This record gives sequence, structure tokens and C-alpha cells, in this order.
Amino acid sequence: MHKGLQTRPNFYFILLSIVQVGLNTVEAVWPLPQTFISSSEQYRLNPQTFYFGYEMQSAAQPGCTVLDSAFKRYFSLIFLDSTSGYGALRFSVDKPFGVEISVDRDDCEGYPSEDSSEKYNLTVSAGRASLNAQTVWGALRGLESFSQLVYQDDFGSYFVNKTEIEDFPRFQFRAILLDTSRHYLPVQTILKTLDAMAYNKFNVFHWHIVDDPSFPYQSRTFPDLSAKGAFHPMTHIYTQSDVRRVISHGRLRGIRILPEFDSPGHTKSWGKGQSDLLTPCYNGGIPSGTFGPINPALPSTYTFMATLFKEVSSVFPDSYIHLGGDEVDFTCWRSNPDVRAFMQAMGFGGDFTKLEAFYMENIMNITSALNKTNIVWQDVFDYHERRSSLSVVEVWKEGCYLCEVRRVAKAGLKVILASPWYLDQPGPTHNWARYYTVWPLAFKGTEEQKKLVIGGEVCMWGEYVDATNLMPRLWPRASAAAERLWSDEQQTSNVDKAFPRLQEFRCKLLRRGIQAEPLFVGHCKHEYQGI
Amino acid sequence: MHKGLQTRPNFYFILLSIVQVGLNTVEAVWPLPQTFISSSEQYRLNPQTFYFGYEMQSAAQPGCTVLDSAFKRYFSLIFLDSTSGYGALRFSVDKPFGVEISVDRDDCEGYPSEDSSEKYNLTVSAGRASLNAQTVWGALRGLESFSQLVYQDDFGSYFVNKTEIEDFPRFQFRAILLDTSRHYLPVQTILKTLDAMAYNKFNVFHWHIVDDPSFPYQSRTFPDLSAKGAFHPMTHIYTQSDVRRVISHGRLRGIRILPEFDSPGHTKSWGKGQSDLLTPCYNGGIPSGTFGPINPALPSTYTFMATLFKEVSSVFPDSYIHLGGDEVDFTCWRSNPDVRAFMQAMGFGGDFTKLEAFYMENIMNITSALNKTNIVWQDVFDYHERRSSLSVVEVWKEGCYLCEVRRVAKAGLKVILASPWYLDQPGPTHNWARYYTVWPLAFKGTEEQKKLVIGGEVCMWGEYVDATNLMPRLWPRASAAAERLWSDEQQTSNVDKAFPRLQEFRCKLLRRGIQAEPLFVGHCKHEYQGI
Repeated sequence: MHKGLQTRPNFYFILLSIVQVGLNTVEAVWPLPQTFISSSEQYRLNPQTFYFGYEMQSAAQPGCTVLDSAFKRYFSLIFLDSTSGYGALRFSVDKPFGVEISVDRDDCEGYPSEDSSEKYNLTVSAGRASLNAQTVWGALRGLESFSQLVYQDDFGSYFVNKTEIEDFPRFQFRAILLDTSRHYLPVQTILKTLDAMAYNKFNVFHWHIVDDPSFPYQSRTFPDLSAKGAFHPMTHIYTQSDVRRVISHGRLRGIRILPEFDSPGHTKSWGKGQSDLLTPCYNGGIPSGTFGPINPALPSTYTFMATLFKEVSSVFPDSYIHLGGDEVDFTCWRSNPDVRAFMQAMGFGGDFTKLEAFYMENIMNITSALNKTNIVWQDVFDYHERRSSLSVVEVWKEGCYLCEVRRVAKAGLKVILASPWYLDQPGPTHNWARYYTVWPLAFKGTEEQKKLVIGGEVCMWGEYVDATNLMPRLWPRASAAAERLWSDEQQTSNVDKAFPRLQEFRCKLLRRGIQAEPLFVGHCKHEYQGI
Repeated sequence: MHKGLQTRPNFYFILLSIVQVGLNTVEAVWPLPQTFISSSEQYRLNPQTFYFGYEMQSAAQPGCTVLDSAFKRYFSLIFLDSTSGYGALRFSVDKPFGVEISVDRDDCEGYPSEDSSEKYNLTVSAGRASLNAQTVWGALRGLESFSQLVYQDDFGSYFVNKTEIEDFPRFQFRAILLDTSRHYLPVQTILKTLDAMAYNKFNVFHWHIVDDPSFPYQSRTFPDLSAKGAFHPMTHIYTQSDVRRVISHGRLRGIRILPEFDSPGHTKSWGKGQSDLLTPCYNGGIPSGTFGPINPALPSTYTFMATLFKEVSSVFPDSYIHLGGDEVDFTCWRSNPDVRAFMQAMGFGGDFTKLEAFYMENIMNITSALNKTNIVWQDVFDYHERRSSLSVVEVWKEGCYLCEVRRVAKAGLKVILASPWYLDQPGPTHNWARYYTVWPLAFKGTEEQKKLVIGGEVCMWGEYVDATNLMPRLWPRASAAAERLWSDEQQTSNVDKAFPRLQEFRCKLLRRGIQAEPLFVGHCKHEYQGI
């Protein structure tokens, strides 16, 4: 009575074999480190005598918020069964086991940035582990790897094996997009996603915070935008304090919060709280009562946008900002006599891509003056003549996306690749391999051009996604992308080899409370008990 | 940056309009009752003075377990915000509002069966509602409808409108299948599914309890089956007490528990705890070490099966039992010299379908002697010559499934339709309309033949499904099937009309803690906060 089983016999056999092996394997760090040497020599860890510490020469020392809080967090993640918390009074006759950390820079109170090194070295030997990194952000990645090395035997004892790791990310920009406009996501859901991102070494949360259906961002300067544009003005908004919580939660996990305020299209909800912002559409020579994209012909538009982006730039500390610029429908602009008159005056003729480019230029000037690096969707690149004013282009369209990556890189601009990682899309949802077998640099280009590909992004659009199904739809499929973006391509090009590792990592995610869906038939020692 | 939005503009507009209407509509019972008349006359309900009661002439009276516990349950479901529980000491100056129930039969301690009437009449008028049914099972359906009629205004007050409902199910058999072999589902997840089934008026839980990957049913007679065949002998099993809990939870909600012990194929896990049960496969004249379907050539097979089914028949009170019989691979049987010799002796020649039919005949004789009605998958019908020995055939294959329904009905057998409702299948998961626009009786046949179609079943196979993703994958898509199986086809053939009703019902499911995924862009007053 089942239609799909016979189609994947190879998976099925692999599975049967890993069920035997169980969870006690030790080569399990996901995404795979660049260099990973482990031996069967194993050390017992006792939560009573386990500690994290700072090495003498470390630039960061006790009081370092990022690392102090990471020690607490990872203690709980490593000793999930243990009742004693980190730092509690502990007695034991066992010899202590310490993870000692040294970083070159004291960036404990800062934010991760596009330049932050995430490189780390981790050595686990008898009685101690040593973790060295240039930055606290690199140390966080090392702590994550260490936590994945620890395993339990059938009696509940904790072990770690002698291990040597040298690790750094292949791409600097490894993002997940959540869309909080098509459905509102509770702050808890966003924070939980940041947790899971850290387990997967993602480092950018692309917050597509507003769009046509709703405007949940509660602006200090323009409170009417959410008061009138959110699904509900009290229960379906992100207050300034919510936003600060998200930023702080991200910072402590080495995750940048990249806000997107997409315009001039995708702005219907903006119009509810800000009059004269959207273009009035005309029908038969008179206003139809409906509105189109932001009105690029009015000076007040740019005053408003400058004020809004001034606020946004100060609220979100990251040096990047996403300006959207995608899918602008020209029908309404074309119908509006004032817009047409403006086109005439500016000498654009009937070419609305020139009007769009003019609008985007103005917005980019605003945000550049605020010291932000602009990201735009590929549409802006495609229709823009003065490409030199662009900085980072995000490729999202289907088809030959590497052709587009190549064009953008050839133009000397930075590229983020999203096309192959649209995880919200209907389709064979279980097919994680589709998100694993992606080769972002497989285009003809110089070394320098390939360096312009700064990374990739998993997109989880919100038409069919909210807090009810986000987690299983995202994990562990996004983990496939995570390994592609972090690990060496040569070492991680085999799907069959990756399968049991990902299967095991998914069990770890479950154990940590992440509602990650199964890859195929099988079980985890600790099943999800959430329902 | 989004690839799917523009493709469903009609849905989008519908949505925008229902967002305005909000949750205060009153015509919202899902699945749609056969006759439903409501007016704008509204009555306020006060949890302090609201009560359920038995009418004088009712055959069931206080002490009726099914109804007493339903009163408690529905009080909580109706007054979700209320702090006072049902039956607590309550004071109020408001006039009381009572839902008074009368049933014709006192089947309070029984189980729902294939013959149980689920018909009910509900009249809501000033100060009281009157609910009449032939059976307590019908009364449960009426309580569900009543609970869906109650709504809250913006200040939290509860209301119900003057309403007149006459209702009965279109099909007698409305099932959901869960597969607890490919992944283990915690008992809590099964109970929660039974809750959601009751909200949708499903009345059969088809428990595909064992299969190739694991045997989680802990048998009293053959404890080794789960001790050796489950994923884990302690944590991944259903004890007798677990099974009793599921049966009791179902009974109190008018849901039959239909167990499936699928054979002779899909039995790999059985072989671990029961030797000489599976067919040893041969390779080049010698046993290969692998095993195939159950060995139909050994008398011990039938002794074992008779003992097992004797237990199963007493553990599960329902008069139906599902015997499987699907997807039998003949390769192993063909390779085995003993099986071939048996074929010879029985005069089957080289026709393995005859061997399969012989096996199934024997099994059906066993369960028929235990007074059970047998259900088999369509494979058994397709390859069986003596079709008269069959009772109920479940149609599951793709293609022209109505052709198969017609063939089975023409042969005078009862039919259950599952083909269009394989919800675990990869594919456009959001496309609920696909499960709504199904016409089970749209085949050429006599009235009598159409009456043989006793219902339909939603199948949630377990290859890619466990407790992490079951709920959002099942709900609200199974709700679409629920309406098709309960309601009048004429009144529920329009997808655009159904959309806002289903959208609203989905919000009700959320409010009751069911992790039902969204149908499209929008929001519910109370979003899912589970994560």
C-alpha cells in the first residue's frame, strides 16, 4: 500500500546499517570541519568536574559576555541529562577535564561582521581540550564542534575522543531568511531558529521583516506603519524591545541580523500607515482606489525613506542592509499621469526600468550615507545600467543561476546565492540531497571573480509557513546547505557518505529540542516528544 | 524574490476579505452539516452559568462515561480562556444556558462500530440548546458542532447564535492511517491525533502498527516480536497498557481503533523475534541469509498466525481487522525450493498469485472464525480468484482509482477509498484543494453498488514522517478529506467557498493546540506558540 518505498533502496540499506552503529560514533561534526583527525582513544567527561576556562594568554578573559554565556549554554547542551548547572558547586573525585580557550582579540562586546574570522583550532587530548581562535566568533564555532564530539554510552556516561580539528568556513556569508510579513512568527520562534542556526554554523539571519501582507516592525519614528499595517497592532508586531532581543540573541551566537526593508514593490502594507507613499493606480483616467509600488515621483517619498532608514540603521547594528528591489510591477506606475509626467521631465521616455533604477539609486544613496553596505535582489542588477553603484547582489531566480552569478561577479560585484535553497517551495520536501548537491563556484571565471561569491542563503518564504511548520520544513534540509557553505567541497560531495552523518546530526538536533524532520525510515534514541 | 506569490491571486483576494470578517462569523462548522440554518440572533454564554445536561427522556443519564467526559472536554474547548473548570462551584446573576442532550440508546459503555448511527439534531435557541441523537456517538458529533458555533467578541465574551442543525455523515467509514513502524510515534502523538480527528468528525483510526522496519506492538503471546523487532525494546514499543489507552481515548471520542497486521509481505521485522516464520531466500541453490515474505508453505506459519490474531482480536474490540496483503514480492518465494515443492504439491504450477491467495484465504479463515470482518488492500482483490471470500477492499493505487472502486463494487464487496488521500506523498504540500475535489461515487454503477463504498481514508505513511512533522503535514489537509467524507457533495463542491471556512477552522484547530499549518498568507487571532 505504499507508493514510494521501493524507489530509494540504497538509502534504505544505508539506513539499516547506521541503525546498528547507533549514536556512539565520534566522527560526527556537522558541517564537516576542514581538517578532522580523531582516534579511538576516549576520555570520560564528568559534569561534576568539567569546566570551560580562559587560557592565560587569551585576549578575552572572565567577564567576556559572549564566551561566558556560551560556556553556560554549551555546558547544558553537552550534559543534556545532567541536573547540575554550569558553575554550580560541584564535588567529585574524578580528575577535572577543562576546555581552555584562547582568542587573539577581545571583541567580547562587539558584533560579528562581514570581516569576522571564524577560524578555530581544537585539540582534544587527555584531561583537556584546547580551543584557539582569532576572535570570540571563531571560538563559538569551536565550542559548537566540541559539543558535537561528546557522546553518551548506553549507561549515560559522557565521552569524547582524542581529536584534532583545524577549521574555517568556505564562505563568509551563510544566511537563513525568514519572512515575518506573510505570516507573523512569534519572537520565540525566531530565537529558536537562531539557536538551530548556531548548531549549523549559519552566521546571518536575513530578516525579511515587512512586505505586502503586513508591516510588523514597530517603528519609533512612524508608529502608524505597524499600528495600521500589521495583522494586529498589539499582538502581531515586533516592538523595539523584541528587535533588541533578537539582535542580542544573535550576537551571543555569532549571528548577524540583516534587516530587509524591501521597496519599491512589496510595500502594500506600508501604505496603510503612511499616506502619499504608494502610487495611486489609475483606471480610465481616474484613480481606481488601489495602490501600486512606492511613488518614485514625489520628493516626500525620499524624505520618508531617509528618515525610516536612519532609524533602521541605528536599530540594526550590522553594516549590511537589504534593500530588496525585486519584482516591481510597472502597470500602476504606467497608469498614473503624474508618474508619466515625471518620466517625461527626467528624460526616461517610456522605459520604466530607468525609473526603477532612479528610485533604487536614491535609496542606495540614503543608506550608503548611513555607512551601510547595500544588498539588492538580482532584479536591480539586471535592470540597472550604473551597476557600479551596487555592492552586493543576491541571486534568487531559477534557471541557470550560475550564469547570473557569473554575470554579477564579472561586473565586479559581490554575490550571494539563494536560488537553489528555496526551502519553502512546494515539491519533494524530503529531498535533502537536492540542497546538498549545489556547486556555487562551478562557473567559468577567474579566482578573483569566484572570491566575489561571498556565500549563500536558505530562503523560507512565508506564504505557506508559520510557527506551526517552520521548524520541520527548515531542518534538517537547511543543514544540507549549511555543510555546502561551510565545508570543503571535495570532502563533502558524496551524498551517500553524507546521509548517515546527517541522519545522526538530525538526532542531535532533536535531542536539543529542534523539531527537525526525519530524512528517512529509522529512529533516534531520543525521539521528539513535543506533542 | 518570491517565486510563487503571483500564481494564486484569487486566493489572495479571498484572504484579504476574510481577514476583515475575522473570527466572529457564525456559519462555521467544519465539516459542513447536512442542514444548517442560523440567524443573527445571538445569545451570550457565561462559563459561570453554562451547563450540559441530560433530558428526562434520554436513555443515557448522569454516569454515562462517554457523555460525562465529553461534557468536561467540550466545556474546556468552548471556554478556552476561562479559568473555572466544568462542574466547579459557580455563582452568577446571569440566567443559565444549558445544552440538553437526549439519546435513544444507552450505549455509554460500548464501543462505536460500523453500524453506529452518528446522526444528530441540534437546536440552539434562547437560554438553551437541545441536542438529540440515536446514540451517544451521534451526540458526540453534535457536541463538536455546538462547540464550533461558539465564538468570542473582541472583549472576550462568548456568544452563540440561534441555529438549527440536522446532520449525519455521508459515509460511515472516515479514517486516518498512521504508520508506527517506519517511525515510532509516541503515544501522546497518537492521542493528540485522535483529538484532532474528533474535531474533524473522523471516526476510524487505522493503526498500521507493524511493518518491515520495526515491530513496536508488544505481544502478550510473543514478546520477542517487539523485544527483537522494535527499534528499541523498551523505548520504542506499544505496551498493552499503551494500546488500551489509545482504544479508550478513541472510544470516548467515538473513534474506532482498527489495527493492521499486514502480511505476508511487509514483515521483515517479524522475523527477528520469530524464527521459521519468514521465507529463507536462496541464491545459486543455497540460502542467501536474507528473508522474504512470510513462509506460506509451513503449517507452523498458520499456527503462529492463529495464535497472534487470537490475541490481537481480543486486544482490539473493533469488529474490523486489517490484514494488509499488499505488495508481495515473489522473488524470494520463487528462489526457495521448499516453496516451489509446495506449489507443485498444491497444483499451483508457477502462479505465485495462487500461493498468495492460498495464504490470504487461510489468514481470512482464521480471523473470520474470530468474528472479525476482514479488510485487505486492493492487491488481494486484484489477484484473488475466489473474491466471494473477501469482505472489504481498500483501494490505494494511483491511476484510475474509480475504475477499481467500480470493479470492487461490481463484485459486491465493500470499498474504502484511499488513493486520493496519500498525504505523506511528496508534492505540492500546500495544495489542500487537491484533497477536497475528490468525488468517490463518480463512477458508473447502480445505487446498490454505490452504497458499497463505505468511506475513505487519509493515509500518512511513515517514511518521512514522525512526531516532528506529523501534525502540520496532516492538518488541515486531512480536514479537506473530512468534509468530503462527511458532508453533502453538492453543498461542498466549491473550493473558493470552502477556502475561508477552512481558513477559519484551521484557526480553531490552532486555538485547540493542534499544530495545523497555514493554507496561505494571513493570520489567526491566536497564533501557534508551541515553539
